[in-house]
Amino acid sequence: MAGSTFGTIFKVTTWGESHGKALGVVIDGCPAGLSLCAEDIQPYLDRRKPGQTSISTPRKESDQVEILSGIFEGKTTGTPISLMVPNTSQKSSDYSEIASYYRPGHADYTFDSKYGFRDYTGGGRSSGRETIGRVAAGAIAIKILKEMGITITAYTKSIGSITIDMSHFNKEAICHTATCMPDEAADQKAMAYLKECMAQKDSSGGIIECIVAGLPAGIGDPVFEKLDANLAKAIMSIGAVKAVEIGDGISVSTAVGSKNNDAFTNADGTVTKKTNHAGGILGGISDGSQIILRAHVKPTPSIFSIQETVNKDMENIEIAIKGRHDPVIVPRAVVVVEAMTALTILDACMMNMTARLDYLTKFYN
Amino acid sequence: MAGSTFGTIFKVTTWGESHGKALGVVIDGCPAGLSLCAEDIQPYLDRRKPGQTSISTPRKESDQVEILSGIFEGKTTGTPISLMVPNTSQKSSDYSEIASYYRPGHADYTFDSKYGFRDYTGGGRSSGRETIGRVAAGAIAIKILKEMGITITAYTKSIGSITIDMSHFNKEAICHTATCMPDEAADQKAMAYLKECMAQKDSSGGIIECIVAGLPAGIGDPVFEKLDANLAKAIMSIGAVKAVEIGDGISVSTAVGSKNNDAFTNADGTVTKKTNHAGGILGGISDGSQIILRAHVKPTPSIFSIQETVNKDMENIEIAIKGRHDPVIVPRAVVVVEAMTALTILDACMMNMTARLDYLTKFYN
Amino acid sequence: MAGSTFGTIFKVTTWGESHGKALGVVIDGCPAGLSLCAEDIQPYLDRRKPGQTSISTPRKESDQVEILSGIFEGKTTGTPISLMVPNTSQKSSDYSEIASYYRPGHADYTFDSKYGFRDYTGGGRSSGRETIGRVAAGAIAIKILKEMGITITAYTKSIGSITIDMSHFNKEAICHTATCMPDEAADQKAMAYLKECMAQKDSSGGIIECIVAGLPAGIGDPVFEKLDANLAKAIMSIGAVKAVEIGDGISVSTAVGSKNNDAFTNADGTVTKKTNHAGGILGGISDGSQIILRAHVKPTPSIFSIQETVNKDMENIEIAIKGRHDPVIVPRAVVVVEAMTALTILDACMMNMTARLDYLTKFYN
Amino acid sequence: MAGSTFGTIFKVTTWGESHGKALGVVIDGCPAGLSLCAEDIQPYLDRRKPGQTSISTPRKESDQVEILSGIFEGKTTGTPISLMVPNTSQKSSDYSEIASYYRPGHADYTFDSKYGFRDYTGGGRSSGRETIGRVAAGAIAIKILKEMGITITAYTKSIGSITIDMSHFNKEAICHTATCMPDEAADQKAMAYLKECMAQKDSSGGIIECIVAGLPAGIGDPVFEKLDANLAKAIMSIGAVKAVEIGDGISVSTAVGSKNNDAFTNADGTVTKKTNHAGGILGGISDGSQIILRAHVKPTPSIFSIQETVNKDMENIEIAIKGRHDPVIVPRAVVVVEAMTALTILDACMMNMTARLDYLTKFYN
Repeated sequence: MAGSTFGTIFKVTTWGESHGKALGVVIDGCPAGLSLCAEDIQPYLDRRKPGQTSISTPRKESDQVEILSGIFEGKTTGTPISLMVPNTSQKSSDYSEIASYYRPGHADYTFDSKYGFRDYTGGGRSSGRETIGRVAAGAIAIKILKEMGITITAYTKSIGSITIDMSHFNKEAICHTATCMPDEAADQKAMAYLKECMAQKDSSGGIIECIVAGLPAGIGDPVFEKLDANLAKAIMSIGAVKAVEIGDGISVSTAVGSKNNDAFTNADGTVTKKTNHAGGILGGISDGSQIILRAHVKPTPSIFSIQETVNKDMENIEIAIKGRHDPVIVPRAVVVVEAMTALTILDACMMNMTARLDYLTKFYN
Repeated sequence: MAGSTFGTIFKVTTWGESHGKALGVVIDGCPAGLSLCAEDIQPYLDRRKPGQTSISTPRKESDQVEILSGIFEGKTTGTPISLMVPNTSQKSSDYSEIASYYRPGHADYTFDSKYGFRDYTGGGRSSGRETIGRVAAGAIAIKILKEMGITITAYTKSIGSITIDMSHFNKEAICHTATCMPDEAADQKAMAYLKECMAQKDSSGGIIECIVAGLPAGIGDPVFEKLDANLAKAIMSIGAVKAVEIGDGISVSTAVGSKNNDAFTNADGTVTKKTNHAGGILGGISDGSQIILRAHVKPTPSIFSIQETVNKDMENIEIAIKGRHDPVIVPRAVVVVEAMTALTILDACMMNMTARLDYLTKFYN
Repeated sequence: MAGSTFGTIFKVTTWGESHGKALGVVIDGCPAGLSLCAEDIQPYLDRRKPGQTSISTPRKESDQVEILSGIFEGKTTGTPISLMVPNTSQKSSDYSEIASYYRPGHADYTFDSKYGFRDYTGGGRSSGRETIGRVAAGAIAIKILKEMGITITAYTKSIGSITIDMSHFNKEAICHTATCMPDEAADQKAMAYLKECMAQKDSSGGIIECIVAGLPAGIGDPVFEKLDANLAKAIMSIGAVKAVEIGDGISVSTAVGSKNNDAFTNADGTVTKKTNHAGGILGGISDGSQIILRAHVKPTPSIFSIQETVNKDMENIEIAIKGRHDPVIVPRAVVVVEAMTALTILDACMMNMTARLDYLTKFYN
Repeated sequence: MAGSTFGTIFKVTTWGESHGKALGVVIDGCPAGLSLCAEDIQPYLDRRKPGQTSISTPRKESDQVEILSGIFEGKTTGTPISLMVPNTSQKSSDYSEIASYYRPGHADYTFDSKYGFRDYTGGGRSSGRETIGRVAAGAIAIKILKEMGITITAYTKSIGSITIDMSHFNKEAICHTATCMPDEAADQKAMAYLKECMAQKDSSGGIIECIVAGLPAGIGDPVFEKLDANLAKAIMSIGAVKAVEIGDGISVSTAVGSKNNDAFTNADGTVTKKTNHAGGILGGISDGSQIILRAHVKPTPSIFSIQETVNKDMENIEIAIKGRHDPVIVPRAVVVVEAMTALTILDACMMNMTARLDYLTKFYN
C-alpha cells in the first residue's frame, strides 16, 4: 500500500509527482448539496504555489485546479470529486545529476531501498508538490466546516529563533506576509534571518501553529481514534514535520498537575475551561475549547553548501545541490497544515453522528 | 466508531473498562506458526501493573492474562488470538462522588458530551487500565519482531526537570528502577522529586523515549501512511501524551539545514548515515538507522490538592480528589509506548512485503 | 489478515474455535444509550444452538452469553461490547483420526495450505460454531434496527426439492418447526426427506430467504459499497453458502426487461413500486420496498457414507466420518443469515447519515 | 461514503460520470517494477466500449486511456497510478425529459432519495460508463497476475434461454463474437433472439461465467474475508447483477452431500480434487482447483416499450424511453467481471503473504 488515502468517511486519495503530467486528488464521501466551483479551491492552492516571494522557488507554476467530476449544476452530487492540477513548468533535464546520488535529508535513499529505484525528477512523489492534492481536498473540507460553524487558522509561529508575539496577532497578516506570520514585526526579523541563511547557503526550520475554533465538545473517539492521535498522524504525514504538539505540548513534561489541569467553570450556562493547557482535547475527545496544535518543521534539506554523501556506485562523494530552493519550508506548509487539520476534524465530526442511539432514532423516524 | 481497532494487517481490537468484569484484546492477522503461551505476554503486563513501587497505586491487581483462542498445540494458528485479563480488585463504592462532577484534566466532561452519560467507576474506558489490551497485543508483536531481528526499547528519559545522562545508559536499570530510567543516579533524583510532589499533593509530567534497532531501510509508505505519521498516531493515542517527536524533534525548528541533514557514507559496503538527526526516517520511510521517538506525558490529572470545577447541576464547586493515584504516569506508560511502537512497526513491515513486483513473483513461483 | 472483522462504523470482530475455551465477539461502534442485557442476546443464540431437534447434533452446549464490557447501569456506553460464550462440552479425543486426512467438502486441506497446519479439533475456526459471535453481534444490531422501525425475518425456503408455499406463510412457525420453515406442511415433508437422507448416510442442501421490512429508500452507496454487494459478501461469508440472490435473482438472466422492470406509482403520496423484482435495491441503493435475498446452502459435508480422500502421507484412502452431524445445515443457519443481514443494514444506515450537507449542518447547528 | 474505493492493499478508487469531463481511477498499492504503458490497458477498455456491434449503443466514444502518474521510465514506481479517460461524445440535450421522472429499473429514484437530487445526464455516476475505471484498474491487476502464473477468463454463458455448449468452448470466440460467447453456434442463436427482443422493444438478461486458473491453494481468509465472499461483493457491485454463484452455486440447495463433496486424490504428488463442485474454494480459501463463478445479469432497464412510472410532481404517467440502448448488458459486462475478479484475487494474494511466521522471517533475514 502506497498509503495515498486518508480518512474514513470523508476519504481523500492523492496522486501525482513533481514532474509528471499532473497532480490530483479524488474526494469520496463529500456530502451532496454543497455549492462548489474551482474558485472555492484556487485561493488555497495559490497560498502554497511557488514563485510569489523572495523566499519561494521561482519555478513558474500557475497550479490551476480543474474539477473533473462530482459536481452537477454547481453542487456536489455525493459522488467522487476528482480534482486535477496540471504540471506546466517541469524541466527534467535539471535532475540528471541527482539521479546518481542520495541527497542528504531527502527520501532518495529510502525510496530506492523500498522500491528498488525512484523517479528522481524533482523528488517524484516525495516532492512538496505532493501536497497539492491535500490542499485542494482541504479547501472543500474547510468550506463544509465553515457551514457547520467551525473555522481553522494556521500560521507561522516561528522561523529559527524568531517567534511571533501573540499580543500583536493580526490574522490578515498571515496571507500578506512572506513568512505567513500574523505579526509584521516578527515577519521582518524572520526575513532578515532568512536572507542571512541564504547568504550562508543554508536553510532554516520553524514552527506552524493551527487553531480550530467553534468545534463543539464530544468530537473524537476514545482509544486509538483519539482526535489528537488522528491530528498527530495528519500533521506528521506532511513531509519535513518532525514533532507535533497539542495544547501545552512538550512543556507538559516539566509541568505539575496543579498547573497543567484546566479548571471547569459555568460560563453563562455552559461548561467551559478557565485555561486551555489541554489544547481543547481531553481523553481524545474535544472539550469545546479551541483546538491548538503545533508542527515543528525541519530546515529545507536542499542547501547549496557542500555536503557529503554516497553515490550509486557506493563511492563517498561531496556534492553541492543546484537549482532553486526555498530557504525555509514553513510558509508554504501553513496552508497544508490547515488542510490536513480540516480533513481530520471533518471526518471526526462525521464519525460522531452515530455516537448515540437517539441520533439514529431521530434521523430514521 | 468507538475507535478500538488498530492496524491494517496485524489488527488489534481492545475492550474493557477499569471496573468491568475484565479487559482484553483480540489480535487478528497474527501469522501462523509462532510459539506462544501466557508466559510470553505476562512479563509485559507485569511491567505496567499497579502496586509495585512507592510511586504506583497500591490497587491490588494480579493482571493475569488468559489466552482464549488462536493457539493450537503451543503455536498460533493464524486465526484471532483472544486475550483476557479479569479485573479482581475494583471497588465501585469509591466512585460515587466522582459521578456528580467533572474532574479537571480527565475525560469525564468529554465522555458526557459525546455519549450523554459515562461509566464513572474508575474512569471506565478512559482509565489507564485500557492499555492492558495494548500491552498484551504488543508483547506478541515484540516477539515476532525479535524473530525478524528487530528490537524495541523504551525508557523514562525525564521526570519533571530530571533527565537521564545517556552516557550512564544501563538497559537493565529500565526494569528495576521505580521510574524505569536507564540511569540509577537520575532515578534517585527523580524519586526525590516525586516524593516532594506527593508531599505537595501534586503530580509530575515526564518524557518517554523509544528506540527501534535492526529495522531495515524501506519500511513505511510515502504520503499519508508515513512510518513517522503512524508512530505519531500510535503514541499520541496513549492517554496523557501531548507531544510526539521523531529524531531531533522539536529542535529542528531552530536548526539550520547544514546541521540537520545527515550525511550518507559507505560503511563496509552499506549505505549509512554519519549522524541520525532524522531519527531513522526520511520521507516517511525507514533509512536503516535507529528509529528514535519521544512522548511527552502530562502530569497525572488526579491530584489531592483543591481544584475548581463544575458539577452536574452546573454549580461551580471545589473538590479534592480522594483515593490512590500515581504521582506520575510515565513509568507505567513506558511499556505501553514500547507496545504501540511494536504494533506500528510490525504492521508497516507486513505492508512492505508487496512493495515490489518481484516480491510477488518470487513468492508465487 | 485473518479477516475476522466486519463493518465500517458498527464494527464486529469475532474469535474462537469449536474446541477452544470459548468463542466471542467484540462490537465496536455501538451507539450509546441502548438498553442491553444478556437476555436480549440469548434467544438468538438459542435458535442456533445444537441438540434441540432430531436433525441437530446432540452435542450438549448451553451456549450462554456473558457480557464482559461496554454496558453501564443497563445501557451501552458507546465503548466496545465484549461478549463471550464458553465452550463446555468439547471432546478433543473424537478428532484424533481426522487429524490424519482431509475431509472432502471441509476446509482441512485449505487451512493446511494456507497456514502450514490446522487446529483439527472440531473444525477449529472453520467450525459452524464460529457463527456464535456473528449471531450475538447480530442480536444487538437487530435490537437497534427495531428502534429505527426496521425488521429482519429469515426462514428456510426449501430443503432439497421441498419448498414452502408462500400462501401458507406463518411467521410463528419459523421458530417452532425443526426446519425453521414458516409452513408446517412443508416442514413435515422436509423432515421426512431428511430422515431418508440420514438413513442413506447422506445430507441435504437448501435455501434460506431473508426479508428486510421498514428500510427507507436511500440506504447503500453507489459503486463498490452497493447495499446488495455488501449483503452478498455478508451472506457468502457464511460457511456452506454457494450462491446469493437479490430479488428475482437467478431468474433475471432469462427474463425480459418489460417483465423485470418494476413500475413506479404514487401510493398515497409516496413513490412505491407496483412489483418488486428488484428485491428492494436499485443501483445499489434501497428503494423503499422490502429487501429480499436468498442464500443457497450446500449439503453438510460430514456424511457417514464411504468417501475417497488423501491422508497426510499422500496416500489415497477411503474414510467414513464418525461422530454426530446435522443432516442439513440450513435450519441452524437461518438466524446467522438474519444476523449478517442486520449487521450489513445497520452499518449502511449509519454510513448514510452523512450523505447530504444539510444532515451535517442540522446536526451541528 | 460514496463507496468508490475497493481493495485493501491493491486499492482502487474510481470517479466520473457518464456526461462529465472524464472518468478515471487511481490505483494505490501497485507494486513497483511492473512494465506498464497505455497499450497494456487500452485493449480491455476497447472490449467494453460502445459502438462496436449491432447490439451495442452507437454512441461514439474512443475511450482512450491516459496515464497521469505512477510510471517512470516505463515502469510502475509503487506510487499511485492515475488513469483518465475523457468523455468526448456526451450530448446532455437528450436527457432533459428524463430529469422529470423516474425510469423503472434505474437508480433515478434511489439517487434522489439518498442525495436529494441527481445528475440526470446519461445516468450520471450510475451509468455503465462508471465501469471504465474498474476495467482500467483490472487490466493492471490482470497483468500482474499473469506474471504470477494466474489467468482469468470471463465469457457470456447464456443470453435469455440460449446457453453455450461447453464441449464447443473456443476461447478465441469470446473476443470476436458480438455476444462474447465462446461458442459461435450459440452466439448465432443468441443474436437472433436479441433481434427479436429489439423488434419487440424489449431487452434480455443473461449469465456471465468467469474462471480463474493457476491460483495456488491457500488464498483467501476464513470468516468475513472469505475469497468467495469478496468475489460475491466484487461481482454484485457491478450494476445489473442480481445473483452470484460459486462452483455448483444454486444447484447445491437441491444436492446431497455424497454428490456435492469433491473427493481428494493424489495426482502426481499433489493433492487435487476429482471433481470441482466447490468451484475452487473450501472454507473461504482457494483449494488449488479452478475458481468458477457466475453472475446473473438483469435485462437492460432502458426499453422502448411503454412503461408506467411517477414524475417529480408525483403524477402517474406513461413513458417510452428514447435514445440508443443495448438490448442486453451482458457482452459489455464480461470484461468488467474479469476486471473485478482480478482485483479481488490479486488483493487476496497480497494479503496472504503474511499468513505464516516463516514468510516474514525469510523475507526479513
